[in-house]
Amino acid sequence: MKKPAPADRPIHPLLADRWSPYAFTNESVAGSDLLALFEAARWAASSYNEQPWRFIAARREEPDAFEKVLSCLVPFNRSWAGHAPALALGLLQTLRPGDGSPNRAAEHDLGLAAASLTVEATHRGLSVHQMSGIVADRVREAYDLPDDVLPLTALAIGYAAPLEDTPEDLRERQARPRERRPLPAFVFGERWGEPAAFLEAD
Amino acid sequence: MKKPAPADRPIHPLLADRWSPYAFTNESVAGSDLLALFEAARWAASSYNEQPWRFIAARREEPDAFEKVLSCLVPFNRSWAGHAPALALGLLQTLRPGDGSPNRAAEHDLGLAAASLTVEATHRGLSVHQMSGIVADRVREAYDLPDDVLPLTALAIGYAAPLEDTPEDLRERQARPRERRPLPAFVFGERWGEPAAFLEAD
Repeated sequence: MKKPAPADRPIHPLLADRWSPYAFTNESVAGSDLLALFEAARWAASSYNEQPWRFIAARREEPDAFEKVLSCLVPFNRSWAGHAPALALGLLQTLRPGDGSPNRAAEHDLGLAAASLTVEATHRGLSVHQMSGIVADRVREAYDLPDDVLPLTALAIGYAAPLEDTPEDLRERQARPRERRPLPAFVFGERWGEPAAFLEAD
Repeated sequence: MKKPAPADRPIHPLLADRWSPYAFTNESVAGSDLLALFEAARWAASSYNEQPWRFIAARREEPDAFEKVLSCLVPFNRSWAGHAPALALGLLQTLRPGDGSPNRAAEHDLGLAAASLTVEATHRGLSVHQMSGIVADRVREAYDLPDDVLPLTALAIGYAAPLEDTPEDLRERQARPRERRPLPAFVFGERWGEPAAFLEAD
């Protein structure tokens, strides 16, 4: 199933076609595809090239590892993401290894890596549904995380199910129109809250 | 100038070709291109679709707005980014508008939007150099930011200069080989620090 963004001006199909499904087909994700997704994450930009992103990932072919990731999601996310063929957690190194100071860009840079992963996924016909709904304390305990590692997100990865194969209780979410605020509401120019000059050239 | 990632396995060229130049050609960025970059950011994913990203952006054709952004960078970044044809600041709404609670994913989601912007830029032959080196208090004062808005990053946008046109003091940085830690160092499986099972299938 595809659900391209109703963009106001053309953007690259790998960006327009990205969306977050709630239902996936039964098809497995090939190990080689999953490797490529994390290779894409690997080459993201980061502050001082510190690459603060960390991932925990499992395919359903590894039931123990998969169930362990699944157990870290909040109940609603567990209910649908457990049907995805691959799951991951997104974590970050909060301190700069060099001097132990806080890396203020670490959460942002995990986002850069996760977005790169998602572009590679879209290119391979896969969909990624990212979640902020995890139980951080559960992740910390289950994986005995070092103190300077923070769990932040989860990712469900698979092939988006067509609407007719989507469980009834998720069908409205799967079909929901994609909406965003317009550019003048978040791209400002010389003064906060006033649209950037180049928006008016539109 | 191009500097593709020496990836261990193929990733999409829009990801491999992304890099962060320190020198740009004199060519301006068309307003229509800049619009498309922010349209790409607009369609990123975000926690509860709250789209917490905000941007302040200017082309050098708007000297007052451009200088204002430039004045918010730390001195080293001012020295090279001032030659880029377009500059932006990345900010975020720290609270969820619905209930005023902290949006723990806001910095991460600004990263998702910035990465989408960068993919669209690469597609258009543009390069984006993101920076964490900004003077947050200066941004807050210059733009009279609301208390619940946090400035986090800056972005220099333009066409990467060839090495021979790069100022001598930046040439080593412009040419520096691209390096990343290997996948087993950050993609773990059932236990923290132990590589994910699918990495071994490689």
